[in-house]
Amino acid sequence: MWQLYQFPLCPFSRKVRLQMEEKGIAYDLVRESPWLRRDEFLDLNPVGQTPVLVDPGSGVTLIHSCAISEFIEETIEPVPMLPGSAAARGEIRRLVAYFDEKFYADVVGPLLYERALKRIVHRAPPDAGVLRQAMKAVNDHLDYIDYLVGSRRWIGGQLLSLADLACAAHLSVADYLGGIDWRGHEETKQWYSGMKSRRSLRTILSERMELVSPPEHYEKPDF
Amino acid sequence: MWQLYQFPLCPFSRKVRLQMEEKGIAYDLVRESPWLRRDEFLDLNPVGQTPVLVDPGSGVTLIHSCAISEFIEETIEPVPMLPGSAAARGEIRRLVAYFDEKFYADVVGPLLYERALKRIVHRAPPDAGVLRQAMKAVNDHLDYIDYLVGSRRWIGGQLLSLADLACAAHLSVADYLGGIDWRGHEETKQWYSGMKSRRSLRTILSERMELVSPPEHYEKPDF
Repeated sequence: MWQLYQFPLCPFSRKVRLQMEEKGIAYDLVRESPWLRRDEFLDLNPVGQTPVLVDPGSGVTLIHSCAISEFIEETIEPVPMLPGSAAARGEIRRLVAYFDEKFYADVVGPLLYERALKRIVHRAPPDAGVLRQAMKAVNDHLDYIDYLVGSRRWIGGQLLSLADLACAAHLSVADYLGGIDWRGHEETKQWYSGMKSRRSLRTILSERMELVSPPEHYEKPDF
Repeated sequence: MWQLYQFPLCPFSRKVRLQMEEKGIAYDLVRESPWLRRDEFLDLNPVGQTPVLVDPGSGVTLIHSCAISEFIEETIEPVPMLPGSAAARGEIRRLVAYFDEKFYADVVGPLLYERALKRIVHRAPPDAGVLRQAMKAVNDHLDYIDYLVGSRRWIGGQLLSLADLACAAHLSVADYLGGIDWRGHEETKQWYSGMKSRRSLRTILSERMELVSPPEHYEKPDF
């Protein structure tokens, strides 16, 4: 059985979990807190980041969410999450990178540090200026997601894909941390409501991080 | 003919170029300076980053170096740069991500900003503290690359792969910017000397960025 090293608010682990859930792949969760820099985990992944996916039976170890996602698509064909032509797959991968890099750097990373890590590790209050900037950035990103889901059926094209899973993974962490003002973003809200009604995301939304609570609307499909 | 939007010191563009050169794919270079945030380029890629690969004939536009690399591997099979089993490909992708994210964040990004962008855009001197920190980080990374090429034939395994191209792309930009002290890193030096003698890298090393010159050893295979 696959073992996934992760922590509840890691958006990259959420993306991989959504992919495994959508494809019906069984796995066990192993809780890892990368900020503790545990020796055994650094032996597994020198970079010290989650997610890491391990199959103790075969000895296969996969590090980095993109390497894991591509491995899953290559080895488990049913319910493809990179559907379509090579160019369509390129468009999906562009959007996954957009959420993993740009949305993470502007929004999820700062929120995670200010609202979760500072509380858990440093026992310090968040920096109001950084939070304000992240919330402003969220708004611009939601405008872009509004445009995407307004002009196509799903985020990456005509079919559900890894782009939807990456978007839902990052949005859900930002939402948990109270970083999203949904007003004025009806298209994205409607798309996210649909994602929230999928079993894959519901499982993840039911979990909690120690010391940090989500807002009341967090789990509700109708929010 | 493919058109690659890039600038001479963009490590992500270098990685894609090395891949296209190794596979014998013809392309034209389009010089883009992302810091100018040109409207036409932002229309092409809202994130405003290089590389972007366009085929004006078919209208295919590929954005982000990972999306481009995967597209190239999917559509042009000869000279595979993701060779081997799914797990072996996972290991190559882990290392590409290591260079694109960790090595870039610790070394190439700070060097590019301090030694090139500050001179070209801001006409300001570099921050000595940031440079010192990047040079210290380089040393730790070179230790890890020494370990990799000391324990396997190439960076990603027994065959030349995208991991070698990513490593050479980032190392070559750091070296151009005078950020690498090669002393004490014989394994990496020997591997890089081999890379430098390949036509794919030689072409790139012969190019120059305006206002910023590389150190004397930069182009020499024997350095």
